[in-house]
Amino acid sequence: MTGVFVTLEGPEGAGKSTNLGYVADALRRAGCEPLLTREPGGTPIAELMRGILLEHHEESMDPDAELLLVFAARAQHLNRVIKPALAQGRVVISDRFTDATYAYQGGGRGIDAARIAALENWTQGSLRPDLTLVLDVPVEVGMARARARSALDRFESEQRAFFDAVRETYLQRAAEHPARYRVVDASGELDQVQRHLEPVITQILERWRA
Amino acid sequence: MTGVFVTLEGPEGAGKSTNLGYVADALRRAGCEPLLTREPGGTPIAELMRGILLEHHEESMDPDAELLLVFAARAQHLNRVIKPALAQGRVVISDRFTDATYAYQGGGRGIDAARIAALENWTQGSLRPDLTLVLDVPVEVGMARARARSALDRFESEQRAFFDAVRETYLQRAAEHPARYRVVDASGELDQVQRHLEPVITQILERWRA
Repeated sequence: MTGVFVTLEGPEGAGKSTNLGYVADALRRAGCEPLLTREPGGTPIAELMRGILLEHHEESMDPDAELLLVFAARAQHLNRVIKPALAQGRVVISDRFTDATYAYQGGGRGIDAARIAALENWTQGSLRPDLTLVLDVPVEVGMARARARSALDRFESEQRAFFDAVRETYLQRAAEHPARYRVVDASGELDQVQRHLEPVITQILERWRA
Repeated sequence: MTGVFVTLEGPEGAGKSTNLGYVADALRRAGCEPLLTREPGGTPIAELMRGILLEHHEESMDPDAELLLVFAARAQHLNRVIKPALAQGRVVISDRFTDATYAYQGGGRGIDAARIAALENWTQGSLRPDLTLVLDVPVEVGMARARARSALDRFESEQRAFFDAVRETYLQRAAEHPARYRVVDASGELDQVQRHLEPVITQILERWRA
């Protein structure tokens, strides 16, 4: 028995939390209790690493150090939380995973995708999500929503060009691997976005029952 | 102008701090002001990572996560502290570096050396220490000295077999690359150990003046 590994991607302000709750409720109504988790973090030790990643520092963080720290948190999360849950046949939905690394550290920080792929293979072996849901919003919409709700973390404080590259990377990866990705336009009203999520929910349940 | 990169290795209780001070004083008397630093740590952000590595956690740390975190701290230290100092022609002496990773995460935790080498190359490119000084003590001597001085951190709390493997790895690496390593018997009296350090100090100064 192996579970279903679903990842949810998108910038701050794309409505990930709200839509994650919607998907989880729909799965529960169908008798499937998903494990909801997030990156960076998802375990007590990985959340300590998340703290270092997101907080502001007087010293500038080296991009390679940031990337290695992202994968350190991921290894802890994967080996202590995600893999054991998948081995029990559960649906695991992670708010962000390695696509975010390609988008933020690759697109945003400019680290070569081949260098990211080397650490992805080192850390994950052949494990990849079964399904990746990308909530897509225009950069100015996401930035405005993120600014409206709380103090900006180290990533949210980046400039417009950073977020343009993040969005571009998500869309490009989705276009390259259409079988794994579902891109949902998250710029509209909530009920409209949620209508787009229905086929995704059906797909998760079909895989889970298979 | 490139400096000289010296690393100091050995278990807790080998007298690294005392002997580092002795070497540094001798260099200063010869007109060479070394940069003394340490791993894991050596920068404010890397010291935060050191905290996660050394403190005890309720959750067990995944060995891959530990190794990636060690290299995250190393990337920060290397790119923000070590490389800039070497570029200024300085002698840099780091209390531990990648040999400790082979010894603790490789020998101690049992991670395959090839997996460590992959991250070493990823993080450091071709950069290696010019000289690595291994302070060697029998395991029971090091453990007794470490226990006598303070509460044991997450590594110091390991069992005898762990430290046997750490020592064995250091000695094996030194034997394989005799040009880079100097192994000094650190089990005797301090003045005896320091007599063994004289040729090392001479060698550092010769390289620095070259």
